[in-house]
Amino acid sequence: MAEERDDLAVEEPLEIRVEGRAVAVTMRTPGHDEELAAGFLLTEGVVARREDIVAIAPAKPKRGGVAEPNIIDVKLARPEAVDFARLTRHVFTASSCGLCGKATIASVQAKHPALSPDEGPRVPAEVLAKMPASLALAQETFQRTGGLHASGLFSADGRLLVSREDVGRHNAVDKVLGHLLLGGRIAPSEVVLLVSGRVAFEIVQKALVARIAFIAAISAPTSLAVDFTRSSGQTLVGFLRDGRMNLYAGADRVGD
Amino acid sequence: MAEERDDLAVEEPLEIRVEGRAVAVTMRTPGHDEELAAGFLLTEGVVARREDIVAIAPAKPKRGGVAEPNIIDVKLARPEAVDFARLTRHVFTASSCGLCGKATIASVQAKHPALSPDEGPRVPAEVLAKMPASLALAQETFQRTGGLHASGLFSADGRLLVSREDVGRHNAVDKVLGHLLLGGRIAPSEVVLLVSGRVAFEIVQKALVARIAFIAAISAPTSLAVDFTRSSGQTLVGFLRDGRMNLYAGADRVGD
Repeated sequence: MAEERDDLAVEEPLEIRVEGRAVAVTMRTPGHDEELAAGFLLTEGVVARREDIVAIAPAKPKRGGVAEPNIIDVKLARPEAVDFARLTRHVFTASSCGLCGKATIASVQAKHPALSPDEGPRVPAEVLAKMPASLALAQETFQRTGGLHASGLFSADGRLLVSREDVGRHNAVDKVLGHLLLGGRIAPSEVVLLVSGRVAFEIVQKALVARIAFIAAISAPTSLAVDFTRSSGQTLVGFLRDGRMNLYAGADRVGD
Repeated sequence: MAEERDDLAVEEPLEIRVEGRAVAVTMRTPGHDEELAAGFLLTEGVVARREDIVAIAPAKPKRGGVAEPNIIDVKLARPEAVDFARLTRHVFTASSCGLCGKATIASVQAKHPALSPDEGPRVPAEVLAKMPASLALAQETFQRTGGLHASGLFSADGRLLVSREDVGRHNAVDKVLGHLLLGGRIAPSEVVLLVSGRVAFEIVQKALVARIAFIAAISAPTSLAVDFTRSSGQTLVGFLRDGRMNLYAGADRVGD
């Protein structure tokens, strides 16, 4: 056994402030923090389109000098519409039938309607099969540290449009969704979201809120992610590796 | 490409109620839910010892019938000491020096003092090297689904004391820490906590609050996890696999 050093995945706190109020602190890998903040606010339902954000940038220090790298200040077009109490609480209310996966799915989908079969890209299986290698090629930090999750957005013909990495699985997804929102040039319903690891409820929920119809994961989905996508009209592909894949929902979008 | 089914990792919401008030909802793999709730309350600083919990069990339904499997009711010896407002918010306050990893570490360690070098087990490297295989052997669900994280507690001579699995990395840790708390027979400072994946800030923080001195991970640590353990007096071993390991902090506890 040799005692050794290796390159470590960087983890630092990021505070997201809306109109001067802290609404979240997340442990993330620094970089693309405006995208992370925008993706978080999008998937929390605080903003829905680019125009809802007036300004988004690292916080200016009180006494001048350089900006705070770990605080992102966001100014909104309609700050009066924000429910700050809801945003800073992580407790939902159980439905009258008790608390179960089915009720949790129903409460999300009541606010975010299902995608229709004619929305979303149609992607050949052989194009999907090549996506993990493209994401890995773009995944610079992982190959050095083994510690980061990656997310990527692909066009229907297999081009990697953007990829982001983070110590947090959800942050990597928020970053690519924030990129989509801030860039404003790619239609969410036309892309494939690929995640490097597993896919659980929160990922497919974020994707639906962002109106992404096609989700693929290199590793396993959870039961709740599968149940969610079967009623949301989304496509869910899992275990996309070694030229194989499992189709869990929305299989009609896979094929020529 | 064959369309196929496989066994999925189960993910369902769990609500943790303290004195009738919901303090958290987490997406977890059902099983050992009392341990999960106890570990959560321990690592959130709500309870510190077994006697602080008067009762912990699935919620009784209002109109009779079977208990709610997705709600755990907890009754405390001193409910008046609970700061419910803090517990249900996930926003910390940035320190006066701004927000950074160093300040985040300092704020945790101000409340939870460092472990001293004579606390904690001393574990030979060859004993450590065998732990991942023991955990994998105990990890029933993972081998079927590929979707679960595992955590285990080991004695200094390499015996697996308890192992738990969950779709959530933090839940698997909360379950073994809750087991430790509820069982009350094993001293936290005498065990090794092994996690199946990566180790980030939140895991080493939870371990310190539970007074665990020795943390090992099969995959990579983050920069913040390394910095945290270097000032907490904890031992951190990463990339424990294939008979090798990296020592990041507290190397004195590894050896004969």
